[in-house]
Amino acid sequence: MKVQKIEEQHTTNGVNVNELFNTIDSVKKSPVIAKFKFRADNEWIGGGHNRTTIKDFYGIQKEHRHEATFKLDADEPPLLLGTGKGPNPVEYLLTALAACVTTALVYHAAAKGIMLKSVESRLEGDIDLQGFLGIDKNVRNGYQEIRMYFKIDADVPEEELEELVQLGPTYSPVFDSITKGVPVSVHLDK
Amino acid sequence: MKVQKIEEQHTTNGVNVNELFNTIDSVKKSPVIAKFKFRADNEWIGGGHNRTTIKDFYGIQKEHRHEATFKLDADEPPLLLGTGKGPNPVEYLLTALAACVTTALVYHAAAKGIMLKSVESRLEGDIDLQGFLGIDKNVRNGYQEIRMYFKIDADVPEEELEELVQLGPTYSPVFDSITKGVPVSVHLDK
Repeated sequence: MKVQKIEEQHTTNGVNVNELFNTIDSVKKSPVIAKFKFRADNEWIGGGHNRTTIKDFYGIQKEHRHEATFKLDADEPPLLLGTGKGPNPVEYLLTALAACVTTALVYHAAAKGIMLKSVESRLEGDIDLQGFLGIDKNVRNGYQEIRMYFKIDADVPEEELEELVQLGPTYSPVFDSITKGVPVSVHLDK
Repeated sequence: MKVQKIEEQHTTNGVNVNELFNTIDSVKKSPVIAKFKFRADNEWIGGGHNRTTIKDFYGIQKEHRHEATFKLDADEPPLLLGTGKGPNPVEYLLTALAACVTTALVYHAAAKGIMLKSVESRLEGDIDLQGFLGIDKNVRNGYQEIRMYFKIDADVPEEELEELVQLGPTYSPVFDSITKGVPVSVHLDK
C-alpha cells in the first residue's frame, strides 16, 4: 500500500520492496488500514453464461476504484450444456488459487531478497458431478482435492527451492480461504 | 453431458432440460462418467502480474479440449504494489463463487421448470492484510467472511423466491469448496 513517500526505489521481482516494507511498518503502527473489502457484481446472461464485473474495493480506510473495470465471462462447455463463452466457475476457482499462490510467493521472495527468474504452475482438481446433479448426497458438490505443481527458476541453491515454493501457500489469501473454508452468507434483495 | 441423442429439445432458462435429464439418467446408470478433472496453467509475468491459461479438462472417461483457449490475467492494483493489469486473485475467487452459485441456481430452476427473467448478485468479502503481510499470525490470510446479495426476477410467487435463491448454494461446487474447504497439495516439479 502506498502509504508513505519514499526516496529510493528498490525493486525485486517487479515488486517495489521499499514500498512493501513501508507498508508493513505502516500497518504495524495502524492495523486498521489493513482491513480490505473486495467486491464482485454478477449478471446472468442465459443458460450457463454469466458475467462478473470488478470495479471497486475498500482499503486503507477509504473507497478505491480500479483504473479499469474488468468484465469476466463464465460459461459451461457444450458438454456441460453451456455455450463455451468463457471458463467455467470451477476453472475460475483454480485461476484464483494459481494467481494468489504465485503472487504470495513472488512478494515474499522479494521481501527476502530472492530473485526469481520464472515461476510456472499447473493445477488439477477432482469433482464428481453427482453432487452438483443432486444424484448422491454422499458425494460432495465441490472439489474433492486440488493438486498444484510448481516449476521455479530462482537464484537459490537447488535444496532451498522446496522452502521457496512454500512461501506461496504460507501467505496466500486464496490458499487459506480454500483450504480452511470461509463462511458465506446468501441474501435475497427485495 | 451430451451422452444420448434425443428427439425433442426443450429449453428452460437457456438450459436444455432434456439433455439435463438424460445426463442425470446416464450418471445414475454409470456414476464413473461424472468424475471430472478441471485444470489451469499459470505463468508469472512480473510483480503481481501473472496469467492463467484454461484449455482442457477430463470427464465422461475421456479428455476434452475447450473450443477456445482462455487467458486470464491477474494483477494487484497500484495500491497493493501491482500494475492493475487484471483483477486480483481474491477478486477471481469472488468471480468463481458468483458465477457458480448463479449457474447452479439457473440449472436447478430449469430442472424444476421455473422460468427466470433475471438474476443479479453482488458480493463482498473481508480480508485483513495483516495475514498476507505476515504481521500477525492470529489474523487469517484469507477471507474472514463473504456476503452474497441476490436480486431475482422469476415466474414464482414472491414468497417462493427465498426457496429459489437457495438452489444456488445448495448445489454449487464453488460454494461447497469455499465454505467447507478443499485439501490442496503443493508440489515442486524438478
